[in-house]
Amino acid sequence: MRNRVRRFRGPFHKPRPVDYANASAEVRAVFDDIKATRKLADVNNFWKYLAADPALLKRTWETQKAVLAPGALDRLVKELIYLAVSVTNGCSYGIACHTALARKAGMTDAMFAELMAVVGMANQTNRFADGFRLPIDDAFNE
Amino acid sequence: MRNRVRRFRGPFHKPRPVDYANASAEVRAVFDDIKATRKLADVNNFWKYLAADPALLKRTWETQKAVLAPGALDRLVKELIYLAVSVTNGCSYGIACHTALARKAGMTDAMFAELMAVVGMANQTNRFADGFRLPIDDAFNE
Amino acid sequence: MRNRVRRFRGPFHKPRPVDYANASAEVRAVFDDIKATRKLADVNNFWKYLAADPALLKRTWETQKAVLAPGALDRLVKELIYLAVSVTNGCSYGIACHTALARKAGMTDAMFAELMAVVGMANQTNRFADGFRLPIDDAFNE
Amino acid sequence: MRNRVRRFRGPFHKPRPVDYANASAEVRAVFDDIKATRKLADVNNFWKYLAADPALLKRTWETQKAVLAPGALDRLVKELIYLAVSVTNGCSYGIACHTALARKAGMTDAMFAELMAVVGMANQTNRFADGFRLPIDDAFNE
Amino acid sequence: MRNRVRRFRGPFHKPRPVDYANASAEVRAVFDDIKATRKLADVNNFWKYLAADPALLKRTWETQKAVLAPGALDRLVKELIYLAVSVTNGCSYGIACHTALARKAGMTDAMFAELMAVVGMANQTNRFADGFRLPIDDAFNE
Amino acid sequence: MRNRVRRFRGPFHKPRPVDYANASAEVRAVFDDIKATRKLADVNNFWKYLAADPALLKRTWETQKAVLAPGALDRLVKELIYLAVSVTNGCSYGIACHTALARKAGMTDAMFAELMAVVGMANQTNRFADGFRLPIDDAFNE
Repeated sequence: MRNRVRRFRGPFHKPRPVDYANASAEVRAVFDDIKATRKLADVNNFWKYLAADPALLKRTWETQKAVLAPGALDRLVKELIYLAVSVTNGCSYGIACHTALARKAGMTDAMFAELMAVVGMANQTNRFADGFRLPIDDAFNE
Repeated sequence: MRNRVRRFRGPFHKPRPVDYANASAEVRAVFDDIKATRKLADVNNFWKYLAADPALLKRTWETQKAVLAPGALDRLVKELIYLAVSVTNGCSYGIACHTALARKAGMTDAMFAELMAVVGMANQTNRFADGFRLPIDDAFNE
Repeated sequence: MRNRVRRFRGPFHKPRPVDYANASAEVRAVFDDIKATRKLADVNNFWKYLAADPALLKRTWETQKAVLAPGALDRLVKELIYLAVSVTNGCSYGIACHTALARKAGMTDAMFAELMAVVGMANQTNRFADGFRLPIDDAFNE
Repeated sequence: MRNRVRRFRGPFHKPRPVDYANASAEVRAVFDDIKATRKLADVNNFWKYLAADPALLKRTWETQKAVLAPGALDRLVKELIYLAVSVTNGCSYGIACHTALARKAGMTDAMFAELMAVVGMANQTNRFADGFRLPIDDAFNE
Repeated sequence: MRNRVRRFRGPFHKPRPVDYANASAEVRAVFDDIKATRKLADVNNFWKYLAADPALLKRTWETQKAVLAPGALDRLVKELIYLAVSVTNGCSYGIACHTALARKAGMTDAMFAELMAVVGMANQTNRFADGFRLPIDDAFNE
Repeated sequence: MRNRVRRFRGPFHKPRPVDYANASAEVRAVFDDIKATRKLADVNNFWKYLAADPALLKRTWETQKAVLAPGALDRLVKELIYLAVSVTNGCSYGIACHTALARKAGMTDAMFAELMAVVGMANQTNRFADGFRLPIDDAFNE
């Protein structure tokens, strides 16, 4: 017997991506729509991993397509908000992905620096508000 | 002897606000600048509680004035980002305060609803990214 | 002139609920489906507030109906997971709502106590893992 | 039939406290030890609610007694750390409780203000570190 | 003198693991119990790093053994909850470790996908609840 | 045409550091002050990346210098608090950096282990407090 951590046998622990070549028709239809909508030659890892569950993939893409479409807020503002949340959560994939998407939507170096300054200040003052146990002003409850 | 949790003596536990009438000249100078800059008759609770430490009050206000001034991003976009972070942190004071400030800067009902939709989706997909242990795409590392 | 924080004039800062009586046909259709699916005489506040944006309401309900339907995991287990996340996020509404829903799905007092013990321990050991800067064991990467 | 949210019938949703008068011998023994150790006439709500699960109560108290005992760090420093974590998590009960315990252990107004300043800055710079995607310096990996 | 970040001397910055061969009798006793309880040839890194403080190691293991033992909830459900918390916290070690432990306890691919869907949705709706400032329904306070 | 994710063209997605050799006079002045204050031959990555926005760099350094200066709390206690927050946020750069700075300020192995024990317990009991929906004791509101 070998003296080491016992190997676990199937199913695999680590999630694995589904590539287009190995995807079902259902998954390919979503991948095709993502590529067409975003004008990309291939989808990024986020979609390849979600494809492990085709219903989750489809639902998530449809929600994202609706939510990020320009409306009262334009795409750039939406990507800045997305990035602000990802930074607050410390999610390295979300930060990398939405920095790229915000860049694509027009975020300049100066915008990125101002975004970071606001995100940093909000995280700081949120803690002040909780730590000093602030009562909410009447004017904010109207 | 009364049978209840022993009363703590000495410094109060719960932080207390500093009102203008009882404020030092140093604190009043900051309050005056906040009121002039934001065109308000009085400062909100955030500043009254921070005033317990005049240096902290002054530093925080000067940072906030610089960070929220219009630059590459305008005031409305900065307030939307501030609100998005406050919601992600679940900070009730920050949510109430920056909903009001965002309203003042022009946030409509439709913008608020779209902001919430993006914040919700980002919090959802950040967890997918971490849970599926996504490797960052090369394209996002350029 | 009165000496107090300047009143903000419309739109209101604080989100407001939409009651059935004042709801559009689109919103009523979602409310009716929630009541029928969950066998309730009225929907809870979550849905009344989301109704401010009918598209957000509809999308959120359709996702929730799909995600909480029994599948490989039954409804009780899904509600326990929902509650564990809400506790970890410190979201008071989510805790109250999903404690009630978990109860309805069969959570006993003993299950609740064990859930809390696991949630507490996971939050504790997650910090140990990050603070001690643990490298991931090879066996966990298979 | 009344037109409102259907009342859930037992078990109760909302956790309930166990008072000394209604406590089992096992729970009373823990309560007695808390009161003796902390020199209090009654235990605070934290322990009364945990008492719903006597094993959880006992385990949590024994861990807390060991962890907060003076060692390489004294009680005041440990309470400051406890409070810093509670503020970062936005946990209102933890903030109220450990502000009181830190006061009891000697925290002055000036210490509280400096603690808040450090907590705020750390929450701010943690976001800068994640958002700017900082590589860890070699010197920090020794 | 070389022009670079000054090397720190004395106690290493980065925590280091304790291997069985170099462990004290006290640490070995805990390692032996972990290996016997979990039927493993070696303990994983979590325990090797905690062993830097034998009392912390022992306390943490005893708590984990008690908390994860089957009770009103079985081991699989407990591991799903553990994983849900780890994902919500974005703790990469916790995610890797408890994905493996959940797999060992019987988590299938379909269960993992449903877990992720619930975790994602809960993180999304928790933010909606906070952002829309929902009052808790009376029915949830019974 | 090559079949892969379309390459994004400038500006770069990934933030980049500013080295002393390429820094403006304004940035060099801040770097010089950091090196003089902390007695270092070079600044760490945190400052090199923030230097992308000289105003953000200057403001952050001035705040940090003021906040970490010994006052009612000494430098070691401040670094322990900084580290506790970084661990709670799961910020790997913050953990690495402030473990090193705490070491430099005198943190021993025993102090680190006790810090981790308190941080872990606080994260655990914060969740108990929220999950059991604890009302705050009157004594904590004085």
